[in-house]
Amino acid sequence: MINKLIKKIRKTNAPIVVGLDPMLNYVPKHIQEKAFAEYGETLEGAAEAIWQFNKGIVDATCDLIPAVKPQIAMYEQFGIPGLSAYKKTIDYCKSKDLVVIGDIKRGDIGSTSAAYAVGHLGKVQIGSKSFAGFDEDFATVNPYFGTDGVKPFIDVCKEAKKGLFILVKTSNPSSGEFQDRLIDGRPLYEWVGEMVAGWGGDHMGDDYSYVGAVVGATYPEMGKVLRKLMPKTFILVPGYGAQGGRGADLVHFFNEDGLGAIVNSSRGIIAAYKQEKYAAFGEENYADASRKAVEDMVADISGALESR
Amino acid sequence: MINKLIKKIRKTNAPIVVGLDPMLNYVPKHIQEKAFAEYGETLEGAAEAIWQFNKGIVDATCDLIPAVKPQIAMYEQFGIPGLSAYKKTIDYCKSKDLVVIGDIKRGDIGSTSAAYAVGHLGKVQIGSKSFAGFDEDFATVNPYFGTDGVKPFIDVCKEAKKGLFILVKTSNPSSGEFQDRLIDGRPLYEWVGEMVAGWGGDHMGDDYSYVGAVVGATYPEMGKVLRKLMPKTFILVPGYGAQGGRGADLVHFFNEDGLGAIVNSSRGIIAAYKQEKYAAFGEENYADASRKAVEDMVADISGALESR
Repeated sequence: MINKLIKKIRKTNAPIVVGLDPMLNYVPKHIQEKAFAEYGETLEGAAEAIWQFNKGIVDATCDLIPAVKPQIAMYEQFGIPGLSAYKKTIDYCKSKDLVVIGDIKRGDIGSTSAAYAVGHLGKVQIGSKSFAGFDEDFATVNPYFGTDGVKPFIDVCKEAKKGLFILVKTSNPSSGEFQDRLIDGRPLYEWVGEMVAGWGGDHMGDDYSYVGAVVGATYPEMGKVLRKLMPKTFILVPGYGAQGGRGADLVHFFNEDGLGAIVNSSRGIIAAYKQEKYAAFGEENYADASRKAVEDMVADISGALESR
Repeated sequence: MINKLIKKIRKTNAPIVVGLDPMLNYVPKHIQEKAFAEYGETLEGAAEAIWQFNKGIVDATCDLIPAVKPQIAMYEQFGIPGLSAYKKTIDYCKSKDLVVIGDIKRGDIGSTSAAYAVGHLGKVQIGSKSFAGFDEDFATVNPYFGTDGVKPFIDVCKEAKKGLFILVKTSNPSSGEFQDRLIDGRPLYEWVGEMVAGWGGDHMGDDYSYVGAVVGATYPEMGKVLRKLMPKTFILVPGYGAQGGRGADLVHFFNEDGLGAIVNSSRGIIAAYKQEKYAAFGEENYADASRKAVEDMVADISGALESR
């Protein structure tokens, strides 16, 4: 799957991923009203609204981008109906040949991690048959448990030809409370990064490992160090746009081959119509605003990469 | 909710929680066959099987125990139907007045943690109405993101009168890879424990905080240290039984008041009928075997507490 992701990045010339993290207040009124008219102001109504909202954005952007990253929490908040909208979104994106990164940040002890891995990336055995529960292409994983929490995910990826992005340095303001603490003179995130590179070394695609890392755009200097520490690791970079990251900050997340990183923007793309910059599109044309925001993001990052 | 948990522990005289972590191969054949006859060998069939299995165990043990801890991964592996069985299990346990600890180990950056918190512990606003997606009483949380990943959970708990157990030292063999690394001369898990105690200090029930901690039974010496470091923190202790922990190892997780900890057993209870010790019950009477295993576990822990 890492080979497919890279092929799609090359084809679109866009090392970016659109974060499908729909808050209900991002969803334009006309979509909400239609969904609530059909299902009422219920979990089902909210789930229908975010699904229709997603569909519009995917239709408007799928030819420009290699991948999407639905954040499962935004669906899980609406219970079972929300998770059904998550699954629908995955299936729809895959039908458009987009690579789907499930931002699930799961992680647990061995057999429990195996259950998550099977449910999201592999197939679960039921009697004589096997079924894929969610079937994302990649999943994000929390490393706090160490190797035996991560290994079951890797095993499933190997068999199902899927991939991972493991949290190394997260984009939020307080990420340093634990991640930056020094251990034998080096911050925890470097130790985690080194482990990720080690796990990934035995699990290579053509040029990069299918065991990737998450490093926040909001910490470009750390990204620079981690890029060198994990040369064969693909880095998923959240925190662009709304969280403060800019193209110029991101060049060091990429290798000299122009690859090695994929930058996520969520709110900045999917709620673009709410920004003054894209307000002319109007709420009705929210998806066109998202398309324009994708084009601008690609130009920002490509420009920064070309002028380095 | 921490007050209710303590009240129920006192009433049952059983500081234990039954981990409802059903693997399909734990489910007796007669239950599997009935479920597959109705729904086929499908995700729906598997979900029905684990739900019926759970119901039998809850019916057989609910008068003996204060709480249950369903592990969401075991349901999530069966996709949407599995998560529906998770929700059904929560609702059923609550109807039996059991405290439900959702073992979800979620954690993310601010707004995303807020979505998880709302979905699992609080209510999500949809237009003029609000709905609870899953509605567990407690949830487990991963601390890797630091304060702003945890705070949204605490905020929701405060409003909804719910509680948390935050991972400090996990029970798995490789938990030490990161958690035991020394920072300024003290292991990471102590720093996390200190943060948990700090977060909890402002969020107290009558005697204990509703911000609790997870510390594995498999590391009793560390439990002893953490018990003193977090005197007002309730500790959820996984790893008893199948993972190797015994009653005698656990006394130091408790305070002098006999409270402060709740010990989880999953496989050791729910798959008791598969152990030689309980084999006489037979597969048909799996739930009676679970009841006996609960009684034995309570006796083991109470005995250890009394003789300390």
